[in-house]
Amino acid sequence: MGKLITISREFGSGGRELGRNLAKKLGYAYYDKEIVKEIAAKTKLSEDYVNSIIEKRPFSMFPIHTGSSFQTMTNPIDDQNQLIFREQCNILKEMAVKSDCVIVGRCADYILSEKQPLRVFVYADMDYKIRRCMGNQSAEETLNTKEIKKKIQSLDRQRSQYYMFFSGQKWGDKEYYDLCINMSNIGMEAAVAAIAALV
Amino acid sequence: MGKLITISREFGSGGRELGRNLAKKLGYAYYDKEIVKEIAAKTKLSEDYVNSIIEKRPFSMFPIHTGSSFQTMTNPIDDQNQLIFREQCNILKEMAVKSDCVIVGRCADYILSEKQPLRVFVYADMDYKIRRCMGNQSAEETLNTKEIKKKIQSLDRQRSQYYMFFSGQKWGDKEYYDLCINMSNIGMEAAVAAIAALV
Repeated sequence: MGKLITISREFGSGGRELGRNLAKKLGYAYYDKEIVKEIAAKTKLSEDYVNSIIEKRPFSMFPIHTGSSFQTMTNPIDDQNQLIFREQCNILKEMAVKSDCVIVGRCADYILSEKQPLRVFVYADMDYKIRRCMGNQSAEETLNTKEIKKKIQSLDRQRSQYYMFFSGQKWGDKEYYDLCINMSNIGMEAAVAAIAALV
Repeated sequence: MGKLITISREFGSGGRELGRNLAKKLGYAYYDKEIVKEIAAKTKLSEDYVNSIIEKRPFSMFPIHTGSSFQTMTNPIDDQNQLIFREQCNILKEMAVKSDCVIVGRCADYILSEKQPLRVFVYADMDYKIRRCMGNQSAEETLNTKEIKKKIQSLDRQRSQYYMFFSGQKWGDKEYYDLCINMSNIGMEAAVAAIAALV
């Protein structure tokens, strides 16, 4: 079995960059947006649509978990959510056996729990995340700090709801992770080195 | 200013051992029970009494914080708690300037926050903590798993209350730490290496 690191992250904390740098340092494969592309290809849905679903809480109010029966679902939106989640499970499982890898987001820590990944949660103070998001804005984006804060809170709420919906677990609760790292006072290089020391 | 690592830990998680090993690896001073000894010497109270106070929520129901005024306190028990806490603050501040050091427990992360310590929280699954405590029992101790679980929960509740009382912060909430490390699946050596990579 390959070595596997899953990274869950608060929006703006730098978790994605950390994942990419970590994969590079360790010589592991790195999966993030590739997952959306593969789901889109397999389900014949657009990447934008898949992305909008897997970053948000699905519409149905019935929490489901991997391995549950889907027979009672009749709502076509629910069916599509289920389809996407099932493909997501399949693709993550395929990726995890291909090679050592770092997977960012997508409930990978829960979906691949049988493979005993090193489960990392990356977070930061709100001020740090706002500063980081401001610095990363493209020329077309003109959000002010108040709007960025709202965006961060909204995206994290969606991630939290999505994660709870599929896993029944509380997103960001340290109980469900092996390491939680606060990027507010820790440099990127040191954070990468610390996680690398664990594998 | 010396480098400073503070370690807060759930009972039975191995945080104390981690702190000791970390200090050894980095060549830092290690402070833990020494703090109780010094408080006892300075306050003329017994070590056992000091220990019983600083591991439990003080009796008073008025939360206080470092730097608050103590003038309105009249209860002698409260006064003694205050005295102990003030000595604890003084001693920790003296220790932190003497040399690079690792300090375990004693609200050091909060008391020494101005010195920007690397704040580590060490925790583990209940099963792991029970197994570890069972293995560490001396010949005279004969607690069964149920009794050990109760002891762990009780001691952690006391630590949490003590910390909340003096800091106004939630003990173990990842927001207040730079790194939270779950020892359930991570070996001692790897954990030490990961934290050492951050300083």
